[in-house]
Amino acid sequence: MTDAASHDAEAVVSRLRAALADKVDTSVTALEHARADQSGHRSSGRPLAVVHAESVGDIQTALAIAHQTDTPVVTRGAGTGLAGAALAGPRELVISTLAMNRVLRVDSTDLIAVVEPGIINATLNDELAPSGLWWPPDPASRAISTVGGNIATGAGGLLCAKYGVVADWVLGLDIVLADGRLIRTGRQTVKGVAGLNLTSLIVGSEGQLGIIVGATLKLARLVPGEKYTLTGVFPTVRAAADAATAISASGVQPAIMELMDATTLAAVHELLELAAPARDAALLTIQTDGPAARAEAESIAATIASAGGYATLATTPDEGEELLHRRRSVHPALARRGTTLIEDVSVPRSRMAAMFDEITRIEQHYAITIPTVAHAGDGNLHPNFIFDGPVVPEHIWRAADELFRAALSLGGTLTGEHGVGTLKSRWLAEELGHDQWQLQRDIVRVFDPTGIMNPGKVFQEHPDA
Amino acid sequence: MTDAASHDAEAVVSRLRAALADKVDTSVTALEHARADQSGHRSSGRPLAVVHAESVGDIQTALAIAHQTDTPVVTRGAGTGLAGAALAGPRELVISTLAMNRVLRVDSTDLIAVVEPGIINATLNDELAPSGLWWPPDPASRAISTVGGNIATGAGGLLCAKYGVVADWVLGLDIVLADGRLIRTGRQTVKGVAGLNLTSLIVGSEGQLGIIVGATLKLARLVPGEKYTLTGVFPTVRAAADAATAISASGVQPAIMELMDATTLAAVHELLELAAPARDAALLTIQTDGPAARAEAESIAATIASAGGYATLATTPDEGEELLHRRRSVHPALARRGTTLIEDVSVPRSRMAAMFDEITRIEQHYAITIPTVAHAGDGNLHPNFIFDGPVVPEHIWRAADELFRAALSLGGTLTGEHGVGTLKSRWLAEELGHDQWQLQRDIVRVFDPTGIMNPGKVFQEHPDA
Repeated sequence: MTDAASHDAEAVVSRLRAALADKVDTSVTALEHARADQSGHRSSGRPLAVVHAESVGDIQTALAIAHQTDTPVVTRGAGTGLAGAALAGPRELVISTLAMNRVLRVDSTDLIAVVEPGIINATLNDELAPSGLWWPPDPASRAISTVGGNIATGAGGLLCAKYGVVADWVLGLDIVLADGRLIRTGRQTVKGVAGLNLTSLIVGSEGQLGIIVGATLKLARLVPGEKYTLTGVFPTVRAAADAATAISASGVQPAIMELMDATTLAAVHELLELAAPARDAALLTIQTDGPAARAEAESIAATIASAGGYATLATTPDEGEELLHRRRSVHPALARRGTTLIEDVSVPRSRMAAMFDEITRIEQHYAITIPTVAHAGDGNLHPNFIFDGPVVPEHIWRAADELFRAALSLGGTLTGEHGVGTLKSRWLAEELGHDQWQLQRDIVRVFDPTGIMNPGKVFQEHPDA
Repeated sequence: MTDAASHDAEAVVSRLRAALADKVDTSVTALEHARADQSGHRSSGRPLAVVHAESVGDIQTALAIAHQTDTPVVTRGAGTGLAGAALAGPRELVISTLAMNRVLRVDSTDLIAVVEPGIINATLNDELAPSGLWWPPDPASRAISTVGGNIATGAGGLLCAKYGVVADWVLGLDIVLADGRLIRTGRQTVKGVAGLNLTSLIVGSEGQLGIIVGATLKLARLVPGEKYTLTGVFPTVRAAADAATAISASGVQPAIMELMDATTLAAVHELLELAAPARDAALLTIQTDGPAARAEAESIAATIASAGGYATLATTPDEGEELLHRRRSVHPALARRGTTLIEDVSVPRSRMAAMFDEITRIEQHYAITIPTVAHAGDGNLHPNFIFDGPVVPEHIWRAADELFRAALSLGGTLTGEHGVGTLKSRWLAEELGHDQWQLQRDIVRVFDPTGIMNPGKVFQEHPDA
């Protein structure tokens, strides 16, 4: 397949221009933009070009040329990823799906939407709301991230314990393979078991298997009734984690249950100019919804009290929004303290307090603080490493390494929702085991025999690991 | 890998016996039993032997020998499949997981159960109930089918529209690969996106990728409150299908919504010695659950009435059970009329009436009756072809062929929940498209390079197709 002559970057760009005209962008702004995502990392240099695809045909054309010229391809949506999966570097071609942002069909009886990949998650939900429908995956980035990106990363969010993860809400995918061929996986029906479930295989595959050019989404009906928001203040993070586990064990299912440790809470209070919290105080922020929302909020308040916390129930929806706003201010609050490396371990709900113990141990061992926020309803923790300057210092990587191993030893995973990307590929084999790592890599090769799709991400070999 | 000499059946059995002693069963009863499942079909002859595995190690040992001797392997649980995926024939080795039936762990905080594959679905749920938990997948065969088989086929059931499909309720799998190696896929956590989602790939893979030797299941809390059951009698099957679609569109979500056409209903009444129903009468049987169950049942009764049906709400749980018992009597009722070939097409909920029109057209064209029952809440229809004797007549296959094509043209699938097995492999490429069919087959080869796992099923080539 490889045409040796066409390795020449200019020749590749010429062929792309001949086929796709001014959809091929080589402006410095576009190329520099494509070097980064929201992980805080950048590639080592500018990619070849950015193709702003406007149709499935554009993507098939661009991939056929990439395949024939052995040009590596990085697919990008809004570039809001946190694991470096969409960083594009030298000799790589960027294919952007951001301009393919239409909702092609919504059916409120079949509860499906057919969409293009570039639509922003919140925009889709705004369009669905008048029909009484929503697509439940709700990453914190929902206002800026695309549905295609949510699917490619298997993005999580705040509502997963009650409303499931992305794989639960995607019925079918159209993907263009590395050589430009289009296949349609999955179904439009509630049930369907004809052949292998490639749809779920593609969810979370981080650009390794092809380019998602269309998605058939499973929708839900909007949850009726008011939401109730409450907080619980605890003397220590361990007490807050134990209370979260007690709430999960009580059988009440909050829609949202977020935990902030003391350092995080202090940073948020500082940013929002609130009175400083007590020295080691940690906070749970909880929201209930559905027909039993009020009774569940009251039951949770009682659990908080018996777990040694101080519960406050918002008396109005605005007050509830204000409490959630504090949780949403975590990233800007921490960003003021330095460069942030956001980690993303997930452990069984019952092991959350044990994971916080491990974080405390690692903080002490490395003489650092690791401000941590957690989706406490589902056991997904985001420990934040903070340092000066653009490069992650070696002792921070060592601390992160201990953190991942601790999560694995508690029955957890090194990434709950951000993905592996470039940042965690060196630990992937440790989680999967060598045999499964190799098997997964061989599956990638079935989709992409010449290895042009997002190379160096996820399954990168690390001889030193 | 292949040892030419060991193609000799006796040599293979000797090696198995040397390693697994009396777990290797060559009794005529066992071999004959393994030739059939509940599809009504049989293999062309007896398999080599049945290994009654008692541990993961037994399965690794048996597969290693099969791999070294190039012996095809058929995995069996309870043998209740409806698509012929577990039929074992000449020169094939059967590995049964039925004796591996322990619940290894249940955690009511993490909402997970770790089980062996041979446990019966209903037995698992009986064990979970005292903890207030359940595993929602509920195939009609739940009293006799294994969890491993439910996973291997991606079994459906009555509750899927409200409670999802098997893939939604499996977090991780342990599988032994064709060469005897064990890998563990997935996670014990709510979220996790490290690497490709092999767990969902294995769900519904019908024994092609390896042998499921353990499963980490996601559990739900039992739904509190009473259930309400009602029926709606309609003058025609089309009116009943339209009413089901109207109920789905109304936003009320029944737990169960089953449809019986006139021929099926008449057969059930005959079996149960009830008064004969009106000539073309079709029936919806509906159950609601959860905190709003009563209000939902009343709302559904109103929708039935405005759709031209006659609604009856059961006044006691026993009366509700009696109504559901009629639905559960469909298979014995139809079995009295001849040999049954149960089909399993699924269409978008909104296309159900159109699918019934197609069934009527096919009935008229072939001068046959196709009694049909449907999971009307999720668009999954089971048209039953009935004939005399053990062999499917050619005109029935032609009618089935038209049925599959009709479902595909309505945006549906040729199998909602039974799987492809031997019975539908000739139509699989038509649904997937040639490129995807080949891609899926190549993925199978990554797991099983020499093709010993359940050969001739699912991805069988049909030169005449």
